[in-house]
Amino acid sequence: MKSGLSFLIAALRCEIDELDQLARTSALVGTIGRLVHALQRERGLSNVLLASGGRRFVAQREAQMAVCLRAEEAVRNTFDRLDTEAVRIGNGARLFSRIAWVLPGLDALPELRRRIGAMELSAADATAAFVKLVAGLLAVVFEAADGATDPEISRLLVAMFNFMQGKEFAGQERACGAAAFASGRNDSARQQQWLHLIESQERCFQVFADFSGPALGELWRASQSAPQLAEQERLRRVACAAPAGVSLDAELSQVWFDCCSRRIDAMQAVEERLAADLRLLCEQKTARARAELQAHEALFAELVVEPDAAAAAFFDELPPADPRGSQPRALATAAPIGRQLERSVLEMVQEQSHRLQTMSDELETVRAALNERKLVERAKGLLMAHRRLSEEEAHKMLRRTAMSQGRRLVEVAESVLSMAEYLPSDPVR
Amino acid sequence: MKSGLSFLIAALRCEIDELDQLARTSALVGTIGRLVHALQRERGLSNVLLASGGRRFVAQREAQMAVCLRAEEAVRNTFDRLDTEAVRIGNGARLFSRIAWVLPGLDALPELRRRIGAMELSAADATAAFVKLVAGLLAVVFEAADGATDPEISRLLVAMFNFMQGKEFAGQERACGAAAFASGRNDSARQQQWLHLIESQERCFQVFADFSGPALGELWRASQSAPQLAEQERLRRVACAAPAGVSLDAELSQVWFDCCSRRIDAMQAVEERLAADLRLLCEQKTARARAELQAHEALFAELVVEPDAAAAAFFDELPPADPRGSQPRALATAAPIGRQLERSVLEMVQEQSHRLQTMSDELETVRAALNERKLVERAKGLLMAHRRLSEEEAHKMLRRTAMSQGRRLVEVAESVLSMAEYLPSDPVR
Repeated sequence: MKSGLSFLIAALRCEIDELDQLARTSALVGTIGRLVHALQRERGLSNVLLASGGRRFVAQREAQMAVCLRAEEAVRNTFDRLDTEAVRIGNGARLFSRIAWVLPGLDALPELRRRIGAMELSAADATAAFVKLVAGLLAVVFEAADGATDPEISRLLVAMFNFMQGKEFAGQERACGAAAFASGRNDSARQQQWLHLIESQERCFQVFADFSGPALGELWRASQSAPQLAEQERLRRVACAAPAGVSLDAELSQVWFDCCSRRIDAMQAVEERLAADLRLLCEQKTARARAELQAHEALFAELVVEPDAAAAAFFDELPPADPRGSQPRALATAAPIGRQLERSVLEMVQEQSHRLQTMSDELETVRAALNERKLVERAKGLLMAHRRLSEEEAHKMLRRTAMSQGRRLVEVAESVLSMAEYLPSDPVR
Repeated sequence: MKSGLSFLIAALRCEIDELDQLARTSALVGTIGRLVHALQRERGLSNVLLASGGRRFVAQREAQMAVCLRAEEAVRNTFDRLDTEAVRIGNGARLFSRIAWVLPGLDALPELRRRIGAMELSAADATAAFVKLVAGLLAVVFEAADGATDPEISRLLVAMFNFMQGKEFAGQERACGAAAFASGRNDSARQQQWLHLIESQERCFQVFADFSGPALGELWRASQSAPQLAEQERLRRVACAAPAGVSLDAELSQVWFDCCSRRIDAMQAVEERLAADLRLLCEQKTARARAELQAHEALFAELVVEPDAAAAAFFDELPPADPRGSQPRALATAAPIGRQLERSVLEMVQEQSHRLQTMSDELETVRAALNERKLVERAKGLLMAHRRLSEEEAHKMLRRTAMSQGRRLVEVAESVLSMAEYLPSDPVR
């Protein structure tokens, strides 16, 4: 029969196990970040290539595709290691399911690139394809953040996910603005989409700042050069504050693209730092837990001489036994140092249990930040089931409502969920 | 490199793995229920033995101790199997930590029994010791319910935990009332404690009824005989509605004890049924998941001939490729049945992903029912840290405030947590 002490050790081993997995997941998030960055650049270059009828950025795009291939290989390697090393990863089922969804997208990249190179696609179609792929990669990061069991690590993962998501909105804004300037005019639908992208990225960066801690927040602020920001805001105003339909200077397309790109490249530096912090935190936490386990094991080796060491201390509130009336027991007569050990074992258990409880509470607070996205996912699922929509169609429907009503996506999602019973009864099942 | 399909399989394997663990945890909960029931009876018999100066229930107590030993062995065996078979169980660290806490209590039982047999303890002290041990066992059940990842199983585990907790409050009410009647009078403090125990058990049974489904709820109602309930309510009124200090008929002590015991024994039948339903549900779910896995594996065996089967379907929104302009690709020219397979793989991934999302949402709803207990635990932890109290002292302090202010324990806990910054700064660290 196992003793209470062996379960204390088992609990510590579980913690170390979870930290090891978090280290792997965090490494995964870092490599995905680099691939997303590379794909965002490729998307931008492909856009200009297609818009210029195949004349501009041919060589740059070729070079960027090579960068993407290396980043993709790193991601695939990390995926492979996840699968083989740890079948029982945090929320394994959901994480693996997201990976299963995005891998066919990576497999389809060569054909997408071929069609872009052959000028078979419009800039809008190519952009949409890259957006879908990046969204799939970010969904993997989201599950990694949602599955974390350590609140401090979870905090950084939530910051990371929101930063990456904000950066992606910035990338989409770049594409949206480049297309608007290049076409020589803006229309009301694109203006609304543009403002929506600005609002979305600002909210993401706010969550990032709330969760990343002051040092990273400072790095983020410092990375945004004031003149550059002023230039970007000026271009936004020119395009979005003007009445719809007013003509735009097509020459500003390149200015806008370069201005956005400098900002996005600066973001990548912050993201790399965040990934490095995440790695370091995982290492520190694992080292600390391992040291604690060693200390406990050393203590327990001493305790083996007293097999039911902690038992005597359990009912400690009871009045002391009368030494004349009771049979003398080894434990009752143990030396003071012995009693101290018994006490300390129970105290250690209690301490561990309260630490785990506190961690679990903190974790819930951190994860609340991920809830907005979950609400949107849930509303999408509802629409898909009740109205036989694809995921894309459901998302577009929510976004259209949000833009036309001037509300946030999450508010529309909440309305949809609260009206669930008014929707037509589920025709699928 | 692994394909998307292999991650779909991995996600399914994770689900099966989690279900297997849930089956083990559910079995553990069932055996703990039986041990708790046996200990509750032993507590009652020990109480009467001590109150009667060692004359009554001597043989019955001996027989009950044998029942307890068998139930304890079953629990220890299940603990052992947990540890060796599945190190990576749901919220392993917290579950194991609770087990580490309760095992010394089981180890200390022989000494507790010896002292009771030797008339060395008061009835109140003996009761307190059993209450502590049962609380430790229920904490293990709580973690099992909190760690469940399947919403339907989690629902039954939450019902089970609340039923067991309600039954324990009923057992404490039995002891409280028996002592009151036996002493020949009631005082205001005991009346308050008594009413508190009634309110607590009613809330637990309400949560049980909300989560157990109609069939078990009906069984629970049917198990409570109306004349017996009326008798218990009459005795409660006699003792609690009378002004404090009024003398009570000591002869009613036995009547009260028997009346409560019949009700508690009837509860055990409901609990056994709940445990059986839990086992059945785990078996059904595991069987269903295994069948799904087999079906998927069979399908994927066919797909091996098309290594990037799902890839062609990923960017499905793109306009179809011009067959003259593009190199003919195996996938683009695949037979209709081929394309159908590609689609179905992506659809399966999407379906799985949405199923997992829905499960995770439902799970959050179910787990909200466990939050009250977490708030109380958190407030206790805060008091322990800031005021250097033991867990028992912190709990008593919260309960005293709740009783004197006529508020629920969880409301007091919320007040304590909201005033956290007003507490003296942490002297421990």
